Amino acid sequence: MSNSAYNPVTRDVIKALRKIVGQGNVLTDEEKLETYSHDETEAAVYGHAPEAAITPLTTEQVAAVVKLANKERIPITPRGAGSGLSGGAIPEYGGIVLSLEKMNKFLELDKANMVAVVEAGLVTNDLASAVRAEGLFFAGYPMSLQTCMIGGNIAENAGGGKAVKYGVTGRYVLGIELVTPLGDVVQLGGKLSKDVSGYDLKSLVIGSEGTLGIVTRAIVKLIGNPTARSDILALFKTPKDAIDMVPAILSNGIAPASIEFMDQISIITSCGYLNESLPYENCGAMLLIELDGTDASQVETDLVATGKLCEANGAMEVYVAEDKNNIERIWNVRRNIAEAFKVYSPIQSIEDIVVPISRIPEIIPELERMGKKYSLRIPCYGHAGDGNLHATLVKDPEMSMETWKENERLCLKELYKVTGGMGGKISGEHGIGIKRREYLKDVIDPVELSLMRAIKKAWDPNNIMNPGKIFA
Amino acid sequence: MSNSAYNPVTRDVIKALRKIVGQGNVLTDEEKLETYSHDETEAAVYGHAPEAAITPLTTEQVAAVVKLANKERIPITPRGAGSGLSGGAIPEYGGIVLSLEKMNKFLELDKANMVAVVEAGLVTNDLASAVRAEGLFFAGYPMSLQTCMIGGNIAENAGGGKAVKYGVTGRYVLGIELVTPLGDVVQLGGKLSKDVSGYDLKSLVIGSEGTLGIVTRAIVKLIGNPTARSDILALFKTPKDAIDMVPAILSNGIAPASIEFMDQISIITSCGYLNESLPYENCGAMLLIELDGTDASQVETDLVATGKLCEANGAMEVYVAEDKNNIERIWNVRRNIAEAFKVYSPIQSIEDIVVPISRIPEIIPELERMGKKYSLRIPCYGHAGDGNLHATLVKDPEMSMETWKENERLCLKELYKVTGGMGGKISGEHGIGIKRREYLKDVIDPVELSLMRAIKKAWDPNNIMNPGKIFA
Repeated sequence: MSNSAYNPVTRDVIKALRKIVGQGNVLTDEEKLETYSHDETEAAVYGHAPEAAITPLTTEQVAAVVKLANKERIPITPRGAGSGLSGGAIPEYGGIVLSLEKMNKFLELDKANMVAVVEAGLVTNDLASAVRAEGLFFAGYPMSLQTCMIGGNIAENAGGGKAVKYGVTGRYVLGIELVTPLGDVVQLGGKLSKDVSGYDLKSLVIGSEGTLGIVTRAIVKLIGNPTARSDILALFKTPKDAIDMVPAILSNGIAPASIEFMDQISIITSCGYLNESLPYENCGAMLLIELDGTDASQVETDLVATGKLCEANGAMEVYVAEDKNNIERIWNVRRNIAEAFKVYSPIQSIEDIVVPISRIPEIIPELERMGKKYSLRIPCYGHAGDGNLHATLVKDPEMSMETWKENERLCLKELYKVTGGMGGKISGEHGIGIKRREYLKDVIDPVELSLMRAIKKAWDPNNIMNPGKIFA
Repeated sequence: MSNSAYNPVTRDVIKALRKIVGQGNVLTDEEKLETYSHDETEAAVYGHAPEAAITPLTTEQVAAVVKLANKERIPITPRGAGSGLSGGAIPEYGGIVLSLEKMNKFLELDKANMVAVVEAGLVTNDLASAVRAEGLFFAGYPMSLQTCMIGGNIAENAGGGKAVKYGVTGRYVLGIELVTPLGDVVQLGGKLSKDVSGYDLKSLVIGSEGTLGIVTRAIVKLIGNPTARSDILALFKTPKDAIDMVPAILSNGIAPASIEFMDQISIITSCGYLNESLPYENCGAMLLIELDGTDASQVETDLVATGKLCEANGAMEVYVAEDKNNIERIWNVRRNIAEAFKVYSPIQSIEDIVVPISRIPEIIPELERMGKKYSLRIPCYGHAGDGNLHATLVKDPEMSMETWKENERLCLKELYKVTGGMGGKISGEHGIGIKRREYLKDVIDPVELSLMRAIKKAWDPNNIMNPGKIFA
């Protein structure tokens, strides 16, 4: 896509970039640029190469590049690990990809305040391991923990499997260092648990997908490491029976780390793929409930109480896994659903709808109906405990690409409309990015959209900061 | 204060207001307007009467009034219970006070989703009681629970005694209905635990002190009611010994509902006032630790562990209160500190600084130093578990009002500078309002302030929505 609002990255610009970040941190050859042209969304559909990719080493360098980009009217696309699922790191308008990969220092572990100060390019897993070694826990982590970077987690306000108890990334971000779209550096928040000294700009930036600036550092909150853990696998006749468990558990004051949901087709496909034999005969849906804590006896108490609640609420079977092997076996089924469907058909659209928990049972027959209507398989699984479901549109291998594209579009439109009708939204944790921007207006009020646009315009008058994301 | 940017509330405007909200909901007589001229800050200093006060009954009426105010360039000051401590509800520029007091309906208890839908004028205590009767708990409540309204709590992002474990009001607000400064009605968020479908405008509005619109409804999250409770009173030789306990407790995975701190002068004064005999001889500071939960045995386990930690960390004495009478007795001392100092001198400035927890011990000698320098008593108490301290400047009864005003101003300036130097901020839960606006620039970056102003200007181009608050 070309856009006359922007200028090309000329030889002079490259020269200026080299002066700012150093020769070795400006990439321009085609092969290397390919790496920075896509994330985990379908590259063939969404990919687009930048004109240059840079890997700055300091916040000052990031700020200087943004100032240059403003002067020259060149778009900048910030990038973490590129593990996103909405195209947020794709430089659709070319210009500069600014990768935080070399700003990956663990700057400080402040045990007295139970916080860590890290650079945005630190791999979240490295953050988690470093603090675990000190008996502490970083609770704001997503499913793609192994590869993703903390800066990307903040940009998307990532969720993940443990959000029922621990909440999403944003809850653990006490402060950020932000390079604004005008190239100013500002510290928002701090090592503080509370702060109402003016607007909560930190929360505005969290989840804004890199459109309001580049997060270069973060102060994250740590908690005590939950060393005890038990998991329950509960089988239910219907999705509704399974979902009804969520308020039953939570209102009893039990706070499981996870309440994961899998529908029948997800279980069967993943078990088939793994050659696993979960007892899924006659079972319409499963819940995978993880209980954790710092006190083993409390986890045991919660385990017994949760098991009883499942039985009292009509579970067909309740299995308890307290040893590591069995826990892994069950979670493997949950984790491999997407992979399993890729064997059937590699072309998919992983969705990320979020609805009020009580409406989840209504979603399942709707997905079946839409699957038939558009000749797609639509397994549904995800984070039942917070209403966030990864309904996944899977292309029939026999279907032509043209039909797929059209049916995918129509089906997404219908899915989002149904979701909106239930008081839901189209993204719980993956973000809007490029992938969902044309649908956003279908589920949010035009007034809300105009309030968002007003902020974007006020902060980024030249629209150089990750343009094309969120807004269609 | 007069301001040529605004027009007066003319007879025609009154007529139009009456048409919108009904004759009985437009107040103009002087006596009634006096009620709407102040909050809990010092009326003589900050009070200012509005030209009219209105008590609308519906969101549509609120929206129509805001549209009218925009057309006529008349300032609007939204108001809850008027229990604020920063002058946020004071109509400094006259105009219209819009009180939410008659929009106080409990609209829906949705047990399946564990949320309540309420109007902004509902007294927070009524919300809390209604859900407690159903075995549920609204955890986002401040100290002034008995009188304050949920809309005011949202506007200030109120904190309170239980924020260590439960966090502040904002964590429990899943959705709000907002009348924007242009008079549009928009629903932000919903009955959703997660949502990254565009910018997090809901979090931006929470804590914005009514400057970005009027919250008319809220969807609040409920949790299981913690029925078990125990409290610990621990005496320490020095404030540092007391404060060092906070990370010791939290890093062990224990999550007390409260960790309240009282310095020596606070304890002595409050005990004297109440004729209470806590064993404060030789004690430099006390911690009051509340443990709660849904499981009595877990609370007991936490209690024993916390007591042991206190002893291991040098507590002089550790008292446990498990019965209601003793718990009340101890909390009474904490709650009456402000009142006790009012007997000594009714003129005070209750501050609300927040610092990284580890810096609290350094604050105490600074307060002593400033107290001497400006001839003031400055007791310090508050929410140690989250670094939020109500250092309170108390006027010496002998001091002239002129000297007090000057010394208060200089001392606040110095206190805020010291706080900022420790990585702290000037308000943890009371807000900036009128009271702290001239100091805000001293502790936050000019870039941050300009980003805030840019949002305010983009959303409220005529600056009619609660003008004069936050920004000097």
